[in-house]
Amino acid sequence: MSDINKRIVMVDHPVGFPKESDFRLEEVPVPEPGDGEFLVKHDFMSLDPYMRGRMNPTTKYSYAEGLQPGEVMSGGCVGHVIKSNHPDYQEGDAVATYAGWQEYCVTNGEGYHFHKIDTNIAPIEAYLGVLGMPGMTAYFGLLELCQPKAGETVYVSGGAGAVGSYVGQIAKIKGCKVAGSAGSDEKIAWMIDELGYDAAFNYKAHQDFPRQLEAVCPNGIDCYFDNVGGAMSDAVFAHMNVFARAAICGQISQYNLEAPEPGARLLPLVLVRQMRVEGFIVTRFIEQYGKAFADMAQWLKDGKLIYRTTVAEGIENAPAAFLGMLNGANTGKQLVRLN
Amino acid sequence: MSDINKRIVMVDHPVGFPKESDFRLEEVPVPEPGDGEFLVKHDFMSLDPYMRGRMNPTTKYSYAEGLQPGEVMSGGCVGHVIKSNHPDYQEGDAVATYAGWQEYCVTNGEGYHFHKIDTNIAPIEAYLGVLGMPGMTAYFGLLELCQPKAGETVYVSGGAGAVGSYVGQIAKIKGCKVAGSAGSDEKIAWMIDELGYDAAFNYKAHQDFPRQLEAVCPNGIDCYFDNVGGAMSDAVFAHMNVFARAAICGQISQYNLEAPEPGARLLPLVLVRQMRVEGFIVTRFIEQYGKAFADMAQWLKDGKLIYRTTVAEGIENAPAAFLGMLNGANTGKQLVRLN
Repeated sequence: MSDINKRIVMVDHPVGFPKESDFRLEEVPVPEPGDGEFLVKHDFMSLDPYMRGRMNPTTKYSYAEGLQPGEVMSGGCVGHVIKSNHPDYQEGDAVATYAGWQEYCVTNGEGYHFHKIDTNIAPIEAYLGVLGMPGMTAYFGLLELCQPKAGETVYVSGGAGAVGSYVGQIAKIKGCKVAGSAGSDEKIAWMIDELGYDAAFNYKAHQDFPRQLEAVCPNGIDCYFDNVGGAMSDAVFAHMNVFARAAICGQISQYNLEAPEPGARLLPLVLVRQMRVEGFIVTRFIEQYGKAFADMAQWLKDGKLIYRTTVAEGIENAPAAFLGMLNGANTGKQLVRLN
Repeated sequence: MSDINKRIVMVDHPVGFPKESDFRLEEVPVPEPGDGEFLVKHDFMSLDPYMRGRMNPTTKYSYAEGLQPGEVMSGGCVGHVIKSNHPDYQEGDAVATYAGWQEYCVTNGEGYHFHKIDTNIAPIEAYLGVLGMPGMTAYFGLLELCQPKAGETVYVSGGAGAVGSYVGQIAKIKGCKVAGSAGSDEKIAWMIDELGYDAAFNYKAHQDFPRQLEAVCPNGIDCYFDNVGGAMSDAVFAHMNVFARAAICGQISQYNLEAPEPGARLLPLVLVRQMRVEGFIVTRFIEQYGKAFADMAQWLKDGKLIYRTTVAEGIENAPAAFLGMLNGANTGKQLVRLN
């Protein structure tokens, strides 16, 4: 096969905020599937904040191996089988892969990231968002770690992002009061008008977080779903109630710092208010994905769960879209459509 | 009855580290028990770090009402009934009370802090320590919140204090590797030679906490029982393992600050290592005290659990002993013997 597989590799570990020059487009031949393997042409690839962490050198405490310079950027994709030597996969099957930032991959289908998907339930790209890793993250972080009760107040930082936009809606489905923050008036309007948030504020326009939190959560905060960290979390912790729970899902405000910044000490608050704070990576819950997927699919079908995607066109534009996402340019799930 | 009841009141809310002048000795007549009440003469009263928090003005988020100027310092005591108009309490009964810093009290026995105690199991003062609130705190904080498994590493800040000295021993009973810190070489020797700690360091003499932690916990930390907070906790969190658990029991390094100090941001670590961090006040577990008491009493009987007390003589010396405890002058439980 003489087709070309375009892919994006990391040039070197970035220091601070990444630049486009930290990425390089490569063109290589499309690989041939061997015995027991199949070839996938990707329709979409996913861009997610966690990928910034993978670009750091591996440390003793990384939960995943870091990328080495010259390696293909990692990440999830969806596409179709175009050639198969695998008995369980046929040409035309829609599949999810974890092949990273590239147009094609060859796989034997092993590993939990690789599986068939049913495009009768939702469009293929939904399997990178609401029915994929971000959807599972929202579901388990909120329901398993925060365990919200009807009537409680849930607060979501990054409330219009891929994960946060699902968290807010799931919290409403569970009968909670829901508030959140995001970085533009347009996102705030979407959260309130379409996602069902009871209140929200633009954290870039209103930096007096304690006062804003008092306004959007007048009864304090019982459950905090944190995508952001930093000064936002400092203010949220000070506004949390006795026996509040926090699910620490992301810390995007901290990912691009050249050196760690100091912040408020949170443990004295954790103590006197008897809070429970838990960090998580969603793959911990993989054995329970089936039930979560069924719930999410049903809520989609019932119109209780909606989603928005921000789509960049062509793998050449993936680095710019990734940098934009790290700055909050996306609403909902950030994808790249591959040609 | 013409006897005098000596008691200590708080003069005003202290700012920063308390001074002896923040306390005042008062002499009032011993009260008379009415119908359904009994009079207790205290043998010992307890001094505990949490009392510093009670001296602050009440805030929206305090878990207990703060003291008002002129009120008797709050706290637990043990003593004997010397006069009773209550059918269930007889003269000579040994009892625990929560009457605060005073020599006598009249009570109807209601409230979970007031109950009879069995001095056949242990001396009366043990009911202010290993068989009282500090013992329950150690038991539930370690076993319920940290849930240590045999072979895991448990680290205890304030490891020679009332609570910490029990935590270290319970962790050894459960088959863990146990390390900790304390503020003098004498305390370190006691921890290692008598309490069974596998390793410990003097945090006042060795302020390179990351290096010290690497030495005393070469396999990282799975369970952190925190009595101290501040720079110690910053270093401990950086040394905790994936899926580690932290029970936030005390933050004594922070109680006497005139203004909150900044520290390391811990949430990024909580995230990538999927830690669970929980603050607690032991009364949350009150329904389960029976089993904890039975276990602790059995371990005492079996010689698996030992304790040490630091005893000040006479209520006049309570303020100085309290300030000393806030500076770490005590080993084990700090008590005041009343005449």
